[in-house]
Amino acid sequence: MKLAIDAMGGDHAPESIVKGAVQAVSKIDDLSITLIGDEQQINPLLGDTANISVIHTDEKITSDDEPVRAVRKKKTASMVLMAKEVSEGRAEGCISAGNTGALMSAGLFIVGRMKGIDRPALSPTLPTEDGKGFLLLDVGANVDAKPNHLLQYAVMGSIYSEKVREISRPRVGLLNVGTEDGKGSELTKQVFKLLSDAPINFVGNVEARDLLTGVADVVVTDGFTGNVTLKTLEGTAMTMFSMMKKTFMSSFKTKLAAGLVKNDLKQLKDQLDYSEYGGAGLFGLAAPVIKAHGSSNERAVYNAIRQACEMIERNVSTTIAGTMEELQAKEDHE
Amino acid sequence: MKLAIDAMGGDHAPESIVKGAVQAVSKIDDLSITLIGDEQQINPLLGDTANISVIHTDEKITSDDEPVRAVRKKKTASMVLMAKEVSEGRAEGCISAGNTGALMSAGLFIVGRMKGIDRPALSPTLPTEDGKGFLLLDVGANVDAKPNHLLQYAVMGSIYSEKVREISRPRVGLLNVGTEDGKGSELTKQVFKLLSDAPINFVGNVEARDLLTGVADVVVTDGFTGNVTLKTLEGTAMTMFSMMKKTFMSSFKTKLAAGLVKNDLKQLKDQLDYSEYGGAGLFGLAAPVIKAHGSSNERAVYNAIRQACEMIERNVSTTIAGTMEELQAKEDHE
Repeated sequence: MKLAIDAMGGDHAPESIVKGAVQAVSKIDDLSITLIGDEQQINPLLGDTANISVIHTDEKITSDDEPVRAVRKKKTASMVLMAKEVSEGRAEGCISAGNTGALMSAGLFIVGRMKGIDRPALSPTLPTEDGKGFLLLDVGANVDAKPNHLLQYAVMGSIYSEKVREISRPRVGLLNVGTEDGKGSELTKQVFKLLSDAPINFVGNVEARDLLTGVADVVVTDGFTGNVTLKTLEGTAMTMFSMMKKTFMSSFKTKLAAGLVKNDLKQLKDQLDYSEYGGAGLFGLAAPVIKAHGSSNERAVYNAIRQACEMIERNVSTTIAGTMEELQAKEDHE
Repeated sequence: MKLAIDAMGGDHAPESIVKGAVQAVSKIDDLSITLIGDEQQINPLLGDTANISVIHTDEKITSDDEPVRAVRKKKTASMVLMAKEVSEGRAEGCISAGNTGALMSAGLFIVGRMKGIDRPALSPTLPTEDGKGFLLLDVGANVDAKPNHLLQYAVMGSIYSEKVREISRPRVGLLNVGTEDGKGSELTKQVFKLLSDAPINFVGNVEARDLLTGVADVVVTDGFTGNVTLKTLEGTAMTMFSMMKKTFMSSFKTKLAAGLVKNDLKQLKDQLDYSEYGGAGLFGLAAPVIKAHGSSNERAVYNAIRQACEMIERNVSTTIAGTMEELQAKEDHE
């Protein structure tokens, strides 16, 4: 397998990116990686690691860049060259921890859409109380979604969960304002019908308050709602940890207690750290494109690489394309 | 002031409802309350309290009832009779802790809309880290909102926050997928323009991850997104408390720590309990209609009553109606 990785994206680039790549080639068989970025920064971190090559560039896309414009104007940015490695057949997948919007643009305009998919979906796996996690899609690739887009997300999410997360008959839920059939907006009402007829294990509407208890393995929603849901989850968890920290620092007694539970609370925090599940897949493109979290450390980068490898090895893209073709044939026949 | 209260709605009805009402008439001047429900259950709890009268009915709407149908068919349900007290001029506002959908229907079809408002908005005040809270609207009265509806929510929320929560020039934010101008869905892009020209202190787009840090006093969104946001907040907080509880019960050492911080953590939990801010107002109706939380205890009911009284005393409804009229006149003039 051959992956292209943007060495300059993310808060800890290039260090955590290079180190994650070094870890990956040592652990994963038949993997070779092309890192794209500033070789003066990358090479000292690489040493004499085999199976990693470097394409040098001085240009990069920053988090402040306007996504579509940056991808178009910065023709030699590390992220753009990374996507070209895929579109020109020199890599089978790619990973960046950089500007999310720019990666979506590079994915869409350079890597290109998969046949049968109208819109790609940004799809992170989020933590649940039981440690199994659930896939949420879309979290913002497509903020004005049509019913058919959500049907495609459901099929893609189901296939990914079965192939990569090894969940048999993944439970697919539709995020809605109530669990009863027929609830919701015009969009969700139409999607409900489509999902009921789709070749997936559709478990009906699910409510946001049940997401972290693991009510479904795959949760489908439009990009606007998914983005707000993801950020509400993150914001609430962050605020609660910050309030808890203040509580523990408020008196001698509470500081004493903090000392006693420090490691256990660290574990709780780790349980909510979703980089363990890899990055967010940009599903529906011609090849696996993974968005690693901006704050990715070495381990998170390694997990994203493993995820991309599993998507390639287990033929996620071709399975999705095949299923979409069958669905289309069925529709044409009816 | 005269309020009508559904004594049979909510998990702890009629006890917590009656007790909250008794507390309210003892603390709030010139308040009289009509309780609607089963007098055999209500009277023993009332004793000889002055300023509370009872309208007896055996019928009630349950949480399992289909809202619109229940309001139409159960003509003598406590919630329906409560709304009639308002529509027939015998009460200036009403409160129920019962079926939310049914209360929205009763509000819309019996109490009626305010002139100039197309759709009412369900508007709870949610907790923030600094204890000040923010008003979120709409959380589900209207799941397919149009740009103009969100403009109306913004005006209503701003006036309520200024009059009842005594916030001068309340900061009104638009819930969106990014903070930059021009971000978002077709809906939010159109709303952004409308809010920029509205007679409010519009602070632009706000992201869901900043809600609990108090990024705005009033946060405007469509009913679908608002409902999902509210339930994500609740679900995340609940799951984290449950995980924390498990952590504290996991060993002798952590149990010891739990004993030391028990009261402080209870305080943290209380800080996130939004019944302190009253119930969720159903803004945009001809009179104040308040949805108290289903699990309301005596104190939460009292807070909802106080909230309704302040809305009446401080002329929230007439101020909103006047502002909407001015807006309409301005629009007609342009």
